[in-house]
Amino acid sequence: MALILTFLGKGGITRSKIAIAAAKLLASQGKRVLLAGLAEPTLSILLDRSITQDPQEIAPNLQVVKFQVSTLLERNWEVVKKLEAQYLRTPILKEVYGQELAVLPGMDSALALNAIREYDASGQYDVIIYNGTGDSFTLRMLGLPESLSWYIRRFQRLFVNSDLGKTITESPLIQPIISSFFNVNWTADNFTFPINQANNFLDQGRVALADPQRVAAFLVTTPDQIEVADARYLWGSAQQIGLIVGGVILVSPEPNINLSEDFAPLSVSIVPDLPSGDWQPLINALPNFAEQAIQAPKPLEIDIHNREVRLFLPGFDKNQVKLTQYDLEVTVEAGDQRRNISLPSALSGKPITGAKFLNSYLIISF
Amino acid sequence: MALILTFLGKGGITRSKIAIAAAKLLASQGKRVLLAGLAEPTLSILLDRSITQDPQEIAPNLQVVKFQVSTLLERNWEVVKKLEAQYLRTPILKEVYGQELAVLPGMDSALALNAIREYDASGQYDVIIYNGTGDSFTLRMLGLPESLSWYIRRFQRLFVNSDLGKTITESPLIQPIISSFFNVNWTADNFTFPINQANNFLDQGRVALADPQRVAAFLVTTPDQIEVADARYLWGSAQQIGLIVGGVILVSPEPNINLSEDFAPLSVSIVPDLPSGDWQPLINALPNFAEQAIQAPKPLEIDIHNREVRLFLPGFDKNQVKLTQYDLEVTVEAGDQRRNISLPSALSGKPITGAKFLNSYLIISF
Repeated sequence: MALILTFLGKGGITRSKIAIAAAKLLASQGKRVLLAGLAEPTLSILLDRSITQDPQEIAPNLQVVKFQVSTLLERNWEVVKKLEAQYLRTPILKEVYGQELAVLPGMDSALALNAIREYDASGQYDVIIYNGTGDSFTLRMLGLPESLSWYIRRFQRLFVNSDLGKTITESPLIQPIISSFFNVNWTADNFTFPINQANNFLDQGRVALADPQRVAAFLVTTPDQIEVADARYLWGSAQQIGLIVGGVILVSPEPNINLSEDFAPLSVSIVPDLPSGDWQPLINALPNFAEQAIQAPKPLEIDIHNREVRLFLPGFDKNQVKLTQYDLEVTVEAGDQRRNISLPSALSGKPITGAKFLNSYLIISF
Repeated sequence: MALILTFLGKGGITRSKIAIAAAKLLASQGKRVLLAGLAEPTLSILLDRSITQDPQEIAPNLQVVKFQVSTLLERNWEVVKKLEAQYLRTPILKEVYGQELAVLPGMDSALALNAIREYDASGQYDVIIYNGTGDSFTLRMLGLPESLSWYIRRFQRLFVNSDLGKTITESPLIQPIISSFFNVNWTADNFTFPINQANNFLDQGRVALADPQRVAAFLVTTPDQIEVADARYLWGSAQQIGLIVGGVILVSPEPNINLSEDFAPLSVSIVPDLPSGDWQPLINALPNFAEQAIQAPKPLEIDIHNREVRLFLPGFDKNQVKLTQYDLEVTVEAGDQRRNISLPSALSGKPITGAKFLNSYLIISF
């Protein structure tokens, strides 16, 4: 299992430089590193070489790959067709080729996340550095396991209890029709298999995201006040999807700038802004990513003993945070992120008895 | 109907400054302008005021709005529930509240595009300036009507001709079951209504995108070679989704830089890089957006008389462009964008007899 590192912040080119320097640093320490980027040319120009759609070694321990969405879509389409053929007696999709599929919004994120998952599962890397958009779209991507599993658990409960769901699973009239189209009978158990498999992937993703030894982000900013504000906004938003932010990398020609107050309790590492190609001074100034990630505040802590849930929400004030309770879950909104917290059985469905906002923590009592 | 303007390029803060200056320029000319931005704080800091989720006038003729995805999702969820209640005898979704919905990747884009469509349809604006991510995610968003309508037309043909589709529409056994759940009978016509309504929206979106008086993008770059390369990449990618790029805005302290070769035949307007708040010199240097958009090369021209389809694909060479033919359509791939071209009946389904790449144009003969 690899440590998945990503960088958040406004300046795309600077962020890519930091990603490259981090990859070089970790590879030089003997870690097997995969640096994964988007289809756009930034990474390729900075590395002064073309980047392929399958990992290619560019230095000892260091491989680079480009996530070309149209290719990822083709590869995954074959999986979808196999799944359909397994369940449907007369598959419909077999006539559609992966090479003709259009790319819809959201596919970029889902396919890139799946590619990271597969590279992680391959066991070939100790560190995967994802050089993505570094903005709220990257957060939606990393939040996908959590948000999608919410939809599955919420709508599964609804469907099973609905007239439609009950009729389908119980009606002696519908069963023979279903079995004439599907290879399996529709029973409570049969169709839960693919859902369980999906839930299994999603659960693994959620567990990984909550573990600073598995997934961590670092903020990248210059001293520019707008970039600092954006970095703070991304910091808070990252907490909302459960992503641990390990520290701040401040790119500045001047080493005397102090942003500690803006980002406390995180460490701020000041690195020089250098022309591309001159990597060593940048590499030397980078922090110990793994160590900082472990020391950073956890986005969510559930304390069953004290019947408390604590969320770390830096960069927001009390008025920007909204708390509600629906169904069996608690919903917290801040920034443009919404988090549905699936509570352990000891707290699930219990009414909220109090909530306070203290030192950037939202503390909910049951 | 409004002119929808957007800016593409790497530097998020610079791009936002240009969007603000453009909004101020057009408002000063008497156009009713809506400036729409993301939830992140950039626009709000540059304008030195908070931005609300409903349009607010900040100067004569100039309104500003923030696309907060969680709010847009809530508002649209009510529409989904109404649609369900109209078609399903016992609606399932009524118990799910818009306020608890998680945001999945892709929703940001779909909801923002829908919000732009609604503001456009309101008739209250002459110009809508969308200050989005300015990267391939913005292109996916604007390409949504085209790519989604491809899925609908491709899969509708497949489903209607499949065993499953035929049985559902023809079987006397299935009809009564369906009518016990749905308010309408499943006939060829009944269920095409919501699909036709969706197709209608999508067609309107596709028609608007092809019209330089309705939608146009401008590239924003500094002289930095990586930013220039990224802008060129976005230019070619924009053509692939059918988005007209009207010109280039080069932000540079030096007025003597010449990028005309990189972006021919587009005009390059050089504008100064100024501290925020000092808008007038920037406004004075902006081009005539509407005029440049009309003069720019069209992404796609279909010449039925000469049995030719011409695609403008700047920034790519011959080896980066892939052409294939599936089903009734022609698929062109370049950058990380894929375009399925739905041909008029005179050319639809006809075999390709030749293709050449000349002066950035891909010319396909039938």
